[in-house]
Amino acid sequence: MDTQLINDDLKRALKSPQIYQHFFDVIEWATFPAGKLFRPRLVLALAQDLDGMTLNHRKLASAIELHHAYTLVHDDLPAMDNDLLRRGKASTHAQFGEWKAILAGDALLILSFNELSKIDAEYLPELLKFMTWTTGAKGLIFGQYLDLEAKTNQFSDIIRIHELKTARLIQLCLVGSHLISTGDFSKKMLRLGRALGVSFQLIDDLTELSSTNLSSHEKEINPFLKWPGESFARLLKDILYIKTTLKSEDLKSLFQEVNLYLQGMINILIKNQDVIRSHSNTKEFKFGFEQLMRDLTSGEIL
Amino acid sequence: MDTQLINDDLKRALKSPQIYQHFFDVIEWATFPAGKLFRPRLVLALAQDLDGMTLNHRKLASAIELHHAYTLVHDDLPAMDNDLLRRGKASTHAQFGEWKAILAGDALLILSFNELSKIDAEYLPELLKFMTWTTGAKGLIFGQYLDLEAKTNQFSDIIRIHELKTARLIQLCLVGSHLISTGDFSKKMLRLGRALGVSFQLIDDLTELSSTNLSSHEKEINPFLKWPGESFARLLKDILYIKTTLKSEDLKSLFQEVNLYLQGMINILIKNQDVIRSHSNTKEFKFGFEQLMRDLTSGEIL
Repeated sequence: MDTQLINDDLKRALKSPQIYQHFFDVIEWATFPAGKLFRPRLVLALAQDLDGMTLNHRKLASAIELHHAYTLVHDDLPAMDNDLLRRGKASTHAQFGEWKAILAGDALLILSFNELSKIDAEYLPELLKFMTWTTGAKGLIFGQYLDLEAKTNQFSDIIRIHELKTARLIQLCLVGSHLISTGDFSKKMLRLGRALGVSFQLIDDLTELSSTNLSSHEKEINPFLKWPGESFARLLKDILYIKTTLKSEDLKSLFQEVNLYLQGMINILIKNQDVIRSHSNTKEFKFGFEQLMRDLTSGEIL
Repeated sequence: MDTQLINDDLKRALKSPQIYQHFFDVIEWATFPAGKLFRPRLVLALAQDLDGMTLNHRKLASAIELHHAYTLVHDDLPAMDNDLLRRGKASTHAQFGEWKAILAGDALLILSFNELSKIDAEYLPELLKFMTWTTGAKGLIFGQYLDLEAKTNQFSDIIRIHELKTARLIQLCLVGSHLISTGDFSKKMLRLGRALGVSFQLIDDLTELSSTNLSSHEKEINPFLKWPGESFARLLKDILYIKTTLKSEDLKSLFQEVNLYLQGMINILIKNQDVIRSHSNTKEFKFGFEQLMRDLTSGEIL
């Protein structure tokens, strides 16, 4: 996938409303350099697998990445996760102060809907409705609320947060791109997006065990230490579902994107497998981890 | 205008996505009891003057009021205006804490676009684009940025902030309602919205002089003390423009709404006229204030 194209589109999205320079600097800081651009890449990859990439797909890709940027700015705030670093540099509030970060987040949020409004198609209202569902008080923001509320008593609580906080936006990538390509709302893409979001977040939880000096809080909340059996089972099940769906639907570009992402994560797991193993002595963890490593490193990943 | 109808619509807008109860409590606190509902009343009043009120107008009215509620929640945050009180009760962050207020603000913002998405009409993309312009980094948020940056060196800086922070959303009320009624984007409504927003904000600045114990900072930034000649001239000019336009366009319901609002403000000015006069000894202030009081209290207001 052409990362340059996505970056250029993002720059255009920011520049087009001719934002006041001082404020623009804050918004630009929050957006660039972009991260892995995983979400817009999913949008464009699926488009390539269906009827080819159009300007409408690119607008959706930009809209979602801008929205993602907003969530990071607000999540990093002192009252939220209080992160001073983001993508290898100071987080937006650490660089510009809190009120500018709050406003830049709001601006990016609205800018994401502005990008969406440029999609020239009759299904725009449906897309707008779906975007507000995936991102709003029943979606992503709700996930952030539950995460900060920190009342995870069972495995399903963690999965619910992953579904809301991570998978909803991935679902918007796939369902939205599919809608632009075909005009149809695809429940298959909705399920695939959920599996992708949840499994990526679970792998992310697992790679967090790569550090030797985890705080007791970090150990306490890690699903693989807390519910090893359920965590590995869910991850393996979701990866199988993803593999089966991508193959049966013949989604080659999307397969490539997902594979590329997984390969990166797996390299981290392989490199740090001894440290990861050292965090748990339970049978379920050992068994689950070995099975995962075997599955993921035998030939192709997916 | 039927306030009960607007309140019922707002309640429905909040309830419909079946938000998690704890989070819903925060969002509800930020929305109710609603204020004067001035913005949704403008939407519906203009609709009555044109071709009658429809469900689409009501969706726009709710969308704008929800958006307004979001701006208040974020504006009140400690990093912004740090207000502990709002509408006679604790502000949202004072009641629930900062992170819940930030998320409730984000949720209301997205909910406002969700309400907009329910407008069933071919011009929805145009309306969405206009809403992102009025509310985004070139609109309302930009105004809030400039206000907090506090670099107002001349009268036009204050007017710019009033235009962005207050008038943009009023423009969305009028241009949006007109668009729903007629299908046309009205530049006349755009100008009328600007005049309404700026003049209401100026009158608000003037009523702030009703207090005997203003801080030196409050005195320093009040446009009527800093630029009395320009402030009164602009206010009188805008009110004249509003009066002329409402009459020439025969917008009776809108006229009534504006008149009602102005009457409330004028009562405050009359009641506190001695205190207001006591804040300035300049000839421009005295002259401007007398002229305004004469204009506003001679027969009908508009």
